[in-house]
Amino acid sequence: EEVAAPAPATADPFSGDPPRHPGLRVNSQKPFNAEPPPELLAERFLTPNELFFTRNHLPVPAVDPESYQLRVEGPGGRELCLSLEELRTRFPKHEVTATLQCAGNRRAEMSRVRPVKGLEWDIGAISTARWGGARLRDVLLHAGFSEEREGEWHVCFEGLDTDVGGAPYGASIPYGKAVSAAGDVLLAYEMNGAELPRDHGFPLRAVVPGVVGARNVKWLRRVAVSPAESPSHWQRNDYKGFAPCVDWDTVDYSAAPAIQELPVQSAITHPRPGAVVPPGELTVKGYAWSGGGHGVVRVDVSLDGGRTWQVARLAGERQALGRAWAWTLWELQAPVAAAAAGGEELEIVCKAVDSSYNVQPDTVAPIWNLRGVLSNAWHRVRVSVRP
Amino acid sequence: EEVAAPAPATADPFSGDPPRHPGLRVNSQKPFNAEPPPELLAERFLTPNELFFTRNHLPVPAVDPESYQLRVEGPGGRELCLSLEELRTRFPKHEVTATLQCAGNRRAEMSRVRPVKGLEWDIGAISTARWGGARLRDVLLHAGFSEEREGEWHVCFEGLDTDVGGAPYGASIPYGKAVSAAGDVLLAYEMNGAELPRDHGFPLRAVVPGVVGARNVKWLRRVAVSPAESPSHWQRNDYKGFAPCVDWDTVDYSAAPAIQELPVQSAITHPRPGAVVPPGELTVKGYAWSGGGHGVVRVDVSLDGGRTWQVARLAGERQALGRAWAWTLWELQAPVAAAAAGGEELEIVCKAVDSSYNVQPDTVAPIWNLRGVLSNAWHRVRVSVRP
Ligand SMILES: [Mo]
Ligand SMILES: [Mo]
Repeated sequence: EEVAAPAPATADPFSGDPPRHPGLRVNSQKPFNAEPPPELLAERFLTPNELFFTRNHLPVPAVDPESYQLRVEGPGGRELCLSLEELRTRFPKHEVTATLQCAGNRRAEMSRVRPVKGLEWDIGAISTARWGGARLRDVLLHAGFSEEREGEWHVCFEGLDTDVGGAPYGASIPYGKAVSAAGDVLLAYEMNGAELPRDHGFPLRAVVPGVVGARNVKWLRRVAVSPAESPSHWQRNDYKGFAPCVDWDTVDYSAAPAIQELPVQSAITHPRPGAVVPPGELTVKGYAWSGGGHGVVRVDVSLDGGRTWQVARLAGERQALGRAWAWTLWELQAPVAAAAAGGEELEIVCKAVDSSYNVQPDTVAPIWNLRGVLSNAWHRVRVSVRP
Repeated sequence: EEVAAPAPATADPFSGDPPRHPGLRVNSQKPFNAEPPPELLAERFLTPNELFFTRNHLPVPAVDPESYQLRVEGPGGRELCLSLEELRTRFPKHEVTATLQCAGNRRAEMSRVRPVKGLEWDIGAISTARWGGARLRDVLLHAGFSEEREGEWHVCFEGLDTDVGGAPYGASIPYGKAVSAAGDVLLAYEMNGAELPRDHGFPLRAVVPGVVGARNVKWLRRVAVSPAESPSHWQRNDYKGFAPCVDWDTVDYSAAPAIQELPVQSAITHPRPGAVVPPGELTVKGYAWSGGGHGVVRVDVSLDGGRTWQVARLAGERQALGRAWAWTLWELQAPVAAAAAGGEELEIVCKAVDSSYNVQPDTVAPIWNLRGVLSNAWHRVRVSVRP
């Protein structure tokens, strides 16, 4: 039941990719990886679909929604195939507002410490949408699985996007996250009220709130429950964190857990680095988010490189305890200190606190890692004040 | 059904306190607050009962186990009273190995930045035990509550320890934590296989794994489900985190959430600050822990103040995903750099990473808060190398 139209081997495998918004900041064309411009990133709580950051590992599959089928492997090897129509009608539609963040968000700052391997994401490999779809939980229970499962199990996802050898993109999440009602994991067919755009997984993707983008598998073709994590490269040999002393000669991927929940994060979206700001009142804006459903309880902003701090005003509705899947936008208005008002540089810094009172590390070097993931040190923006 | 023997108003209310181990480092005699000596702190995975850190807010109540009754307020105002015998026999005994940490652990380091209000805990306001008791979940379901509850609810605890005006110690936890099977919350009557010592809540205490010590109410007399948090001083006007800019004139306790899950933490237990270590191979030991059931996935150790890092060896059994309630002891053997081997000072630093890849902040000042809680910056120990 391969429903993607296979491209002839001689053609550019990316020739079938969809058109994109010209405003996106492109980090890689093939595969397509792009982030919204920082000025627009946090202007709205919900990121417009055409500006939502795109992280593709492979060419975008062309899927015929009429013949599309999701394969769900039930207990005892029984197999279930679900059409889009069945996914829409047999299961209640569930909606969740969730932020997705790439493990490599803010990698550019890490590579300034020492080169790393990966796309040079600035602060925009993060976006927020209202997702709609069937609960993965409901589909698993329908397939015959139960809430409790002895031991450690995983739900493995496979995409319709494949490499030149035919191997699909894949990833897995813990069974407990997948089956719990509070986990809010979706098999999503809607994004901000529209059908999923092709770049975001048309016709069906996993949305795993609070968990790194890489596990939110797009163009989903198969869901299976397994005693082992997904065997995919991206689950086993990528998207893991290491100490700064680990290099490509010493890295042992089996020694670190696959990234699932992400740590607390924040960034300044306004002003931009190098900006010249007027003297007097300064407005600083940004986003903050934490994985695992931990809400953001406070954002501290410094205008003097981290010596003194002020508390930002948090915007947006209050999110449910333990299910705060969406980011928090924040803003601070503060007078620029007289000392800085003579054309001097101002170092603006932000740091967030989540509901477990976890905080961001002060500096990048001690969290540096060879793959440039988990870059969540204080965000620093230098501007100068117009004399 | 007040079962504590009230002391005459003229007597020293602390005269009934139990005898204590002379090896404890006492931070306050009345009420009694003490921590194990740092050398012994992480020598064993389970802290011996007599060395377990003690954090009392009030005199230790004298409770007659024969007449003791726990009052559980059921739905619709129905009241349930459970004797110790009933708690032991009507509900399956559940055992959990969990670390408890006081919100003020490592406060002494914070007060070196700027004075704070609170007991001067060193690194020992943390200990680990194997707890046994009835699941709070089972007792709540027995009382008539159900797993799902619309809206935000709290389980409020009251202790038999009371202030001079008769007001009990109290605290609350979210209903979801209390009722979930994976939350492992106990009404504990056993600690490391023995009955609870008087200092640790005899005959019954709440054990709320992954959650700050202050919610693990001792000498439990009452459990109630409420749409509001516990009205107690310690829930509403204490045990909350604030920005470094907030002082006693500006603090607004309603602006911050009550601490529940604690952030990732670690400390060096060996060598001790000021020690003179032999040249050659150095052994560094310590503990690491994170709240919310997040396991510790890595501990990095630096022998040069945080410039370079090595990965410590983690000891102890693997804990279940999302239910890693106990600390992780760790150890590193490493040669002392030649540069430091001439009687020079060595700054040893540790920092832990938890399963959400949250990390500790580099420095104390940016997380300083007026109450001196949540002190989890990198732990730094200066030693000198014997020439
Ligand atoms: Mo990613
Ligand atoms: Mo505490």
